[in-house]
Amino acid sequence: MTNNKKILLAYRPVGMPDQSHFNTIETNVPELIDGEVLIKSLYISVDPYMRGRMSDTKSYAKPYEVGKPFIGGIVGQVIESKNPKYKVNSFVEGRMEWAEYNVSNGSNIRKIDPEIAPITTALHVLGMPGLTAYFGLLYIGQPKEGETVVVSGASGAVGTIVGQIAKLKGCRVVGIAGAEEKCSFLTNELGFDAAINYKTTPDLYNELAKACPNGVDVYFDNVGGTVTDEVMKLINFQSRTVICGQISQYNLENPEMGPSILGQLLKTSSLVKGFIVSDYADHNKEGLTMLAKWVREGKIQYRENVIEGFENTVDAFLGLFRGENIGKQLVKISEPTIKD
Amino acid sequence: MTNNKKILLAYRPVGMPDQSHFNTIETNVPELIDGEVLIKSLYISVDPYMRGRMSDTKSYAKPYEVGKPFIGGIVGQVIESKNPKYKVNSFVEGRMEWAEYNVSNGSNIRKIDPEIAPITTALHVLGMPGLTAYFGLLYIGQPKEGETVVVSGASGAVGTIVGQIAKLKGCRVVGIAGAEEKCSFLTNELGFDAAINYKTTPDLYNELAKACPNGVDVYFDNVGGTVTDEVMKLINFQSRTVICGQISQYNLENPEMGPSILGQLLKTSSLVKGFIVSDYADHNKEGLTMLAKWVREGKIQYRENVIEGFENTVDAFLGLFRGENIGKQLVKISEPTIKD
Repeated sequence: MTNNKKILLAYRPVGMPDQSHFNTIETNVPELIDGEVLIKSLYISVDPYMRGRMSDTKSYAKPYEVGKPFIGGIVGQVIESKNPKYKVNSFVEGRMEWAEYNVSNGSNIRKIDPEIAPITTALHVLGMPGLTAYFGLLYIGQPKEGETVVVSGASGAVGTIVGQIAKLKGCRVVGIAGAEEKCSFLTNELGFDAAINYKTTPDLYNELAKACPNGVDVYFDNVGGTVTDEVMKLINFQSRTVICGQISQYNLENPEMGPSILGQLLKTSSLVKGFIVSDYADHNKEGLTMLAKWVREGKIQYRENVIEGFENTVDAFLGLFRGENIGKQLVKISEPTIKD
Repeated sequence: MTNNKKILLAYRPVGMPDQSHFNTIETNVPELIDGEVLIKSLYISVDPYMRGRMSDTKSYAKPYEVGKPFIGGIVGQVIESKNPKYKVNSFVEGRMEWAEYNVSNGSNIRKIDPEIAPITTALHVLGMPGLTAYFGLLYIGQPKEGETVVVSGASGAVGTIVGQIAKLKGCRVVGIAGAEEKCSFLTNELGFDAAINYKTTPDLYNELAKACPNGVDVYFDNVGGTVTDEVMKLINFQSRTVICGQISQYNLENPEMGPSILGQLLKTSSLVKGFIVSDYADHNKEGLTMLAKWVREGKIQYRENVIEGFENTVDAFLGLFRGENIGKQLVKISEPTIKD
């Protein structure tokens, strides 16, 4: 019998979570029944939205249950199969338990082809964060050539892709991030037109106004809070604001108070829309096809930040809220059994 | 030479305007040149959006100029014509100066037919407020049968029409207003399913929750502020909030601070959209046709609140911010020259 480690929600955090909110337990991998496969975790994805699921407020995503495992994006390898669709040694991606091993009946996983791109990309540019960027920017933001697109949380898994797609669409792209290294990554490596370090600028509004001389047509928001308050002062007539994340708010007990944006939306006939990637699930194939094409053509770059070891999963997750990652934060759990 | 009175913006208000911000001057009606008509004002429309134009902040509507006349919706009668399109004694509606007489070259007026409906309706249900309700509710709110629609400022010129159109679409309709008389008008005469007096309820959130047992799918907001804060707590997945007005905020020096709504929009994949009626000008004919049909069929009721006398125009306008009107606030300036 194979030994298995799982990470559970110990109790619900109020405010910033820490290690105490997580429990790691040891258990055994059960025998497979017909139709099931056993998957060894290779990479675990840690994502900001998971903080929301630790609370029990009503949301698009069902809360995690106390005493039950975390569930999130994992790339793994099939090491045992009673399902003819999934061969042993093949690679899969899906929403699975934060565990060294998962059993799946095939309904929550998809096959990934290591020939197309490195298997880790199924957790970012060719997976949920890539589709999030694609749908939010193109379906809600609808950027037009020559428009100005501002992205907050710009150096993260979603923000980096949003900015690059906006460049492909002929927009002026301004990123907001929280470190010099992140800002120079955006402008020097990803082709952003400007990047602003909100943590060090003495006057975010003024710096934004300088970086956006024609105002803001599309704002892709991963952050919320005071950063967003300043951007909203610069929105143009019929602007579109995409609410993808509000990471600055996830660990607050109550939403931050701020000036109402509704008057500004009224004066500018502007739109604000929240969304979750699954709202556009019907378009997944289109999105993944386009993203894969852009990656293949070298038009979209990506960066991964990899921490090694299952035991470091929680720390990698908590690091998201300390702003530690550039690009996609991953945890490497194990090597593939057979190299390709 | 005909004597003419006009109301000018004396100086820009900070906070609540009063009589001192307006000047009435006497002047003469100029001689007409070819293509012009002389229009005697019969009814002046006073509308909340005009408060915005008294300030010089950037907005969809160009600010009024200090020392220049107010401009707004007026129904008048042509009493002299050098334009073959407009015959003497015919009725017109258009954006004109707050004056007893206006000269027009025809570009800012439309003919109205007193056979279709009383001429005053061109200033509300068959005019700008009616189209505002129609476009905002149907193009942005997109209510579906069985959904719950909440309207703030529900007893005003726009709100009354919004609620009735929503009823025609098979929705549950809940109005929010600021007086018992307004609330009973909404439920007893206009067929709203429920109406809440936000000024007297001890717990607006609770009363809203009771009136909206299935949550809120469409929120049509004329008011903003704390009323809107409470409604936003009840929005459903993929709800649509229409920002038509923010009358609670127009006379504040700075927007009220409140909890950010962005987290709520994110959790519910919801939309918020500001607009102005002219955004949908291409659809004016469709809107007016439908509204006229509903009025003719008795499916849309309206109420007018008429103050008499040009000298009371400013007071009628200021009364909007004291919540004095039920239905459309008008000022009657004079009788038609020839009765129909």
